[in-house]
Amino acid sequence: MMKREKGLLIVLSGPAGVGKGTVCGALRNQNTAIEYSVSATTRKPREGEKHGVNYFFKTREQFEQMIEDGKLLEWAEYVGNYYGTPIDYVQETINAGKDIILEIEVQGAQKVRTVFPEGVFIFLAPPSLKELRDRIVGRGTETEDIINERMTVAKEEIDLMTMYDYVVENDKVEWAVERIKAIVTAEHCKRERLIKKYKELVEVEK
Amino acid sequence: MMKREKGLLIVLSGPAGVGKGTVCGALRNQNTAIEYSVSATTRKPREGEKHGVNYFFKTREQFEQMIEDGKLLEWAEYVGNYYGTPIDYVQETINAGKDIILEIEVQGAQKVRTVFPEGVFIFLAPPSLKELRDRIVGRGTETEDIINERMTVAKEEIDLMTMYDYVVENDKVEWAVERIKAIVTAEHCKRERLIKKYKELVEVEK
Repeated sequence: MMKREKGLLIVLSGPAGVGKGTVCGALRNQNTAIEYSVSATTRKPREGEKHGVNYFFKTREQFEQMIEDGKLLEWAEYVGNYYGTPIDYVQETINAGKDIILEIEVQGAQKVRTVFPEGVFIFLAPPSLKELRDRIVGRGTETEDIINERMTVAKEEIDLMTMYDYVVENDKVEWAVERIKAIVTAEHCKRERLIKKYKELVEVEK
Repeated sequence: MMKREKGLLIVLSGPAGVGKGTVCGALRNQNTAIEYSVSATTRKPREGEKHGVNYFFKTREQFEQMIEDGKLLEWAEYVGNYYGTPIDYVQETINAGKDIILEIEVQGAQKVRTVFPEGVFIFLAPPSLKELRDRIVGRGTETEDIINERMTVAKEEIDLMTMYDYVVENDKVEWAVERIKAIVTAEHCKRERLIKKYKELVEVEK
């Protein structure tokens, strides 16, 4: 019997406002075999966001307790709020041979890279920084100061692109979703993930 | 203006009898944007194969002249016949920014790897060696000696899998085609192919 292969840890990240949540939601609607990790955060829910679906909404005190208890794979403070990935569900899913996707901020993605270097790191990129600005302004809930702060952060984040395996341009949500699905399929075909299986076949036949 | 990116050179290879031609034909029927390279060979046409579509059928004398004139990207002698890839069309296609796929024997793939290390190398693998044997026998046109020779070659070829980027199992032609398409899409999203473009955007905004 062959050992059960571990699932893929897929990390989808990118600048604030690039549409990570929208793309991840659209991917989720397609009912692929990919599981979704739900982040914990101290930021306030936006309209339509549900506890346990989009995020686990926590108080600062609750979040800091999770940090202390080692219950987070990664966490970061971003524009005044904590964001983090509860570790248990991620580990269980991968060990069961299923793929799981994390939709997280770039600071968090960097930390996950150090713990899971074998993960598949996807950077969701805006067609241009100008369009990023337009999108943030279009959201209409942030002040000018917050927008400028986000732009500065975004430029730094694009410099972080070097640590990712893939860059998916979010020119159109459906196209971004198709690219992410293609990346997951391709990663399952990576030679290093399959070579063992075939070496076994040759041995059996000899 | 950004420089035009080069197209991808995709090399599809694998053991004799694994179904490279069938998979490549099915991919071709889907009218993707991928161009197809036509190999030259000295082997006799099988039923339904057309000159200039499946292969350029050559005499040994013609083929050896092409070798001498440096008109082949790679060539190999395989079970008594020459197979080779005419170089001009491959170069022109890539330089025009289009992707091109070569469906070639493993000996040829190794040679292409040395010339185009940046190519995308896909190994088409049988679900098992036993099934490979069944498929060759099923073809019904080869003698027992040729079958045994092919099996020995196939075992060696599976050892060659280590030089490929991806392994696509040909369990079902449609699935193999979908995996190859996914690999091409994913390769276009590889960070190293896109990072320059985004660095430029950041520079422009600064």
